[in-house]
Amino acid sequence: MDLEEKKISREEIFEGKVLHVVKDTVSLPDGGTATREILLHHGAVCIIPITDDGKVILERQFRYAVGDVLVEIPAGKLEPGEDPLECAKRELQEETGYSADEMIVIGDYYGSPALLREHITMYLARGLHKGKTHYDDDEFMEVFEMPLDDLIDDVMNNKIPDAKTQLCALKAREFLNREKSERR
Amino acid sequence: MDLEEKKISREEIFEGKVLHVVKDTVSLPDGGTATREILLHHGAVCIIPITDDGKVILERQFRYAVGDVLVEIPAGKLEPGEDPLECAKRELQEETGYSADEMIVIGDYYGSPALLREHITMYLARGLHKGKTHYDDDEFMEVFEMPLDDLIDDVMNNKIPDAKTQLCALKAREFLNREKSERR
Repeated sequence: MDLEEKKISREEIFEGKVLHVVKDTVSLPDGGTATREILLHHGAVCIIPITDDGKVILERQFRYAVGDVLVEIPAGKLEPGEDPLECAKRELQEETGYSADEMIVIGDYYGSPALLREHITMYLARGLHKGKTHYDDDEFMEVFEMPLDDLIDDVMNNKIPDAKTQLCALKAREFLNREKSERR
Repeated sequence: MDLEEKKISREEIFEGKVLHVVKDTVSLPDGGTATREILLHHGAVCIIPITDDGKVILERQFRYAVGDVLVEIPAGKLEPGEDPLECAKRELQEETGYSADEMIVIGDYYGSPALLREHITMYLARGLHKGKTHYDDDEFMEVFEMPLDDLIDDVMNNKIPDAKTQLCALKAREFLNREKSERR
């Protein structure tokens, strides 16, 4: 079955500083039509930085959209056309102060594929070197660290509401386990 | 440090069939102000249905927002005020035809906390019984199954772009492993 929906027309709804909302009319697989309200987005990166002794560098940050302080790994939006790796290095350095000898892609994801064209590349950062943080003017956060095993426990006990942090913690551990068993 | 940002005023931008966009002016922790463009949302559920012989029920569905056919676990939006468990049972039945003896909460998440107030509750469904599907008028999908271990391999090999499916596969396996070791 061809599941694809094809764009017939687009109505621009709102283009702000962050959100770009459009309403498209599409043709459906059965020949009918429907409207799709979606958010366009240039993409983003997130980084799980792990120290040589197995601790994850985390941030505590107020997220206005959800009305709460969340524990998250570092992350940031791509500028239009920006290379995800360059963005990941920059966000890691600005938000946590760390630079990394190794930046390993551990996958990518769509966080809300029914609504949002935000495509996020996930990096595992290793070989960390401490430097200075540099926040955006309207960005306030606390940086702290936690052993990866404790973070996994918090993920399983539902103490980490942020999807990328849950996902990268579980993925990073699986990646490290597979790497270890390949070396044997 | 008090990281909270407080709403000063709200501008309604767009309220469509699916998206509700507002632009709020907020006070920052340092006393300054900023604007926050966000999407309001009633929340959603997703369900990882696992058969008695360890296979996951999956869907292949075109996602217009990201322009591709994605492999996903069943999911759906809450109606305003709807109980997440009732919604999860309904979506599981409508999209896959299955009902479940057990619906276990394995956590919740915000898929894109910088932009989107979408809060998603994750269920593991077990003790499955096959029934009939019932799709929405503009919903087209193919249902298939895959062993959980193969799905985890696909997640690690970056063949599953959907965040909730990656996360629920890894979380479900960790949940089942922890349950097994508690029983010993």
